[in-house]
Amino acid sequence: MKKKLFSPGPTPVPEGVLLAMAQPLFHHRDPVFEELFQEVRENLKYVFQTKQDVLVLASSGTGAMEAAIVNTLRRGDTVLVIRGGKFGERWGEICEAYGVNIIPIDVEWGQAVDPVLVERSLETYPEIRAVLVQACETSTGVLYPVKELCEIVKKRDDVIIIVDAISALGAVDLPMDLWGIDVMVAGSQKVLMLPPGLAFIALSEKAWRFCETSDLPKYYFDLKAELKNQRKNQTHFTPAISLIVGLRESLRMIKDEGLQNVFRRHEVLARAMQEGVKALGLEILSNPPSPTLTAIKLPPQIDGQKLKRNLEDHYGIITAEGQEHLKGKIIRIAHMGYFEPSDILQVMAALELELSKMGYPVEFGRGVSSAQRVFKEAGL
Amino acid sequence: MKKKLFSPGPTPVPEGVLLAMAQPLFHHRDPVFEELFQEVRENLKYVFQTKQDVLVLASSGTGAMEAAIVNTLRRGDTVLVIRGGKFGERWGEICEAYGVNIIPIDVEWGQAVDPVLVERSLETYPEIRAVLVQACETSTGVLYPVKELCEIVKKRDDVIIIVDAISALGAVDLPMDLWGIDVMVAGSQKVLMLPPGLAFIALSEKAWRFCETSDLPKYYFDLKAELKNQRKNQTHFTPAISLIVGLRESLRMIKDEGLQNVFRRHEVLARAMQEGVKALGLEILSNPPSPTLTAIKLPPQIDGQKLKRNLEDHYGIITAEGQEHLKGKIIRIAHMGYFEPSDILQVMAALELELSKMGYPVEFGRGVSSAQRVFKEAGL
Repeated sequence: MKKKLFSPGPTPVPEGVLLAMAQPLFHHRDPVFEELFQEVRENLKYVFQTKQDVLVLASSGTGAMEAAIVNTLRRGDTVLVIRGGKFGERWGEICEAYGVNIIPIDVEWGQAVDPVLVERSLETYPEIRAVLVQACETSTGVLYPVKELCEIVKKRDDVIIIVDAISALGAVDLPMDLWGIDVMVAGSQKVLMLPPGLAFIALSEKAWRFCETSDLPKYYFDLKAELKNQRKNQTHFTPAISLIVGLRESLRMIKDEGLQNVFRRHEVLARAMQEGVKALGLEILSNPPSPTLTAIKLPPQIDGQKLKRNLEDHYGIITAEGQEHLKGKIIRIAHMGYFEPSDILQVMAALELELSKMGYPVEFGRGVSSAQRVFKEAGL
Repeated sequence: MKKKLFSPGPTPVPEGVLLAMAQPLFHHRDPVFEELFQEVRENLKYVFQTKQDVLVLASSGTGAMEAAIVNTLRRGDTVLVIRGGKFGERWGEICEAYGVNIIPIDVEWGQAVDPVLVERSLETYPEIRAVLVQACETSTGVLYPVKELCEIVKKRDDVIIIVDAISALGAVDLPMDLWGIDVMVAGSQKVLMLPPGLAFIALSEKAWRFCETSDLPKYYFDLKAELKNQRKNQTHFTPAISLIVGLRESLRMIKDEGLQNVFRRHEVLARAMQEGVKALGLEILSNPPSPTLTAIKLPPQIDGQKLKRNLEDHYGIITAEGQEHLKGKIIRIAHMGYFEPSDILQVMAALELELSKMGYPVEFGRGVSSAQRVFKEAGL
C-alpha cells in the first residue's frame, strides 16, 4: 500500500529532494560543498527571517534544544519553562540534566499560555534568565503567543526567550529579528521537507552575549566553535553532507514559492482541515490550533489508537495518536511542508469513511465539502 | 569530471545504498522501521563483534566520542589520553570541556604508542579511570596496539579502555568482547559506506557499571535512556531514518561478503598501496600503517597541498593532506569501505603521473606493477 505521511515529523520528502540526496557524495572540505553551504546558509536566514547566522547541526531537533541551553546559561541559573505538552516537558528535562533550575508554568494540554502569567512570573522571580517555550507544541497542536512573549522579555536586558520552532518554522510567521526572538531552534523533518538528522539554531546578539558568561559544559554542541567554522562555510565536525544537499533543494522550493505564500498555503490547508473536522461534529483540541497540525478530540466511542491503526491499515495514511494522558483520546493529523489541498481532501475523505466504519455517525462528504469550500474561497 | 573519493571520510557510498536512501520516507514509530532497526542492530553487533547493544546516534562520530566520556566518567576523574594526532587531541579536548583531568601520553605523529608506557602510567597514577585511544589515528594513518592495551587495562577492575574506532571498525579486526574493549565508537561515513550523520557506540558490562556512578551532565547523548529505547527497536529521539535505511543495505553487503573477508580485502588493498608507494621510492609515515588509509611522506620538492589539489583538478581524485605540522609534508590516501583492487591501481597510476609532472623522478608503472603483484599473489 502507498504510505502517506500525515505525521508531525517525519513529513513527506519531495521526490526531487530524495533524488538530489541520491547523488554520489562529495567531500565537505571541497569548494563544491562550501558553495552549496553558503547558499543553504543564506536561505536559512531567509526562512528564519534573521540577519544572524543560522547554524546547522548534525543531530535531531533535541540536540539543538540542548545546544540552546548549554550555550547561553550558567550552572544554577533559573529559567521559566512553559509546560503544556511533551516538548515543554523536554525543555525542563534538559535544564534539570544540566543543573539549571526551572520554574514551570503548567498549562492545560491543548491550551496556550497566558502571557500575563509569564509577565507576573518574571516580576515575582527576578532571578529568571530565560523563558523557554515552543512555537507549536507538537503534542497538542497548540500555537503559543510567541510575539506577545517576546514583547514581555524584550523589556528586560537580563532575560532571553528561547523558542523551539521545530514544528512551526517555515509554516508559521516567526520573524526572529522583528519580534526579538533570542534563540530559535528548528529541525529538518518538519516544514523543511527533509529526512530527520539535521537541526538548526540561530541566536540574537543578546543571546550571543549570554554565551560569553555561560559555563555549562559542551563540546559537540559548542555554538561559538560552530559559528567560527560556519562563517567560513565549513562545520566544526563532519556535516551530514547528503542531508545538506537535500536541504539546498527544499530551501530553493520554499524560496521559489515565497515565504509569505508558504505561510498562506499552510494557513488555508489548516483552515480547510479545521472546518472539515467541525463539520463532522468533532472538536479541535488546540486553542489556538497551529497551522502545521490538527489535533482532533475524539468522541468516547472512537479509540484514537484504533483509529490511527485503521487509517494506516485501510488507506496507508500515517497519523499520530495522543501522548501521555491524551493517548486514545485524540488523533493528530499533520499538514506541514510538502502539502497541497488534494492531500487535505484525501485525508478528510478517509477520516469520514473510517469514522463511519467505526460507528461514528457521518454524513459522507460533509467534512470534505467544508474543506472544498475553504479552498474555493481562497482561490486554491 | 567524475569525482572519486579517496578521502578518509566521507568515503564512496555504493549506488544501491544511495538508491535505498532515495525511497519515500516512512515513520520511525512504524513496525516497518522497528523491523529494519532490529536487523540493523543485529548486524551492528556482528561488525562490532559483541553481544552488547550497539547504540545508533544521530550525530557525527564526535558526538559518540562525547557520549563515551559523559556517560562513563565523573567530574574530576583522571584519564590517560594517547595523543599522537588530531583525534587523540580531540579526546583531550572533550575531557577538558567536561572537567575531566587528562594525563596525556604524547606520541610522535606517525608512531604508535608503546604499551609499556601505558602500563607504567597506570602504575604511577592509580587515579586513572580510563584509557582513551584511537584504533586508527586518522590524521597519521597509524594503527594503535588496541589488543595489547586491552590486556593491560583488563587486569584492573577500576579502569576502562575507550576506543575511537571511527576510521577502523569493519576494516580492522577489533573483536570487542574477545579483547575486552570497554567502549567502542564508530561513524557512518568510513568503512560502513554511508554518508556522515550516524554514530555508533557499544559498552562492555564493565563500562555500563561505570555509567552507574557517572555524574557528568548529558541529555541528547544519555546512553542509558538510549539503551532502554533501542532495546525496543526504537530511539530516544527522532532517528536519522534515511541514513538507517542506507545502513541496512551497507551492513547486508558486509555480512554477505563476510567480516573476515572484508578484513582481508582491506589488508590486501593496503599492502598493494604500501608496496606501490615504496616502489616509487617514497616512505610511509605511519608505523604501523592502518589498512584503512596510507599516509605518504613526500619528498621536499613536492608540496602536499599542491599534490592534493592537482590530483583533484587533473583526475577527480579526492585525497587528504596533512594536518597541523604535517601540512604540506604528507598526503593521505584512504581505501576503506567500498574499495576494490581497481581503485588502488587507478589512484596509484594517477599518483605516478602527477608526481612525475610535478618534477619527482618516476619510472611509470613501477608503483602500479608492485600493486599488481600483490593482488596477483593474493588471488585478487
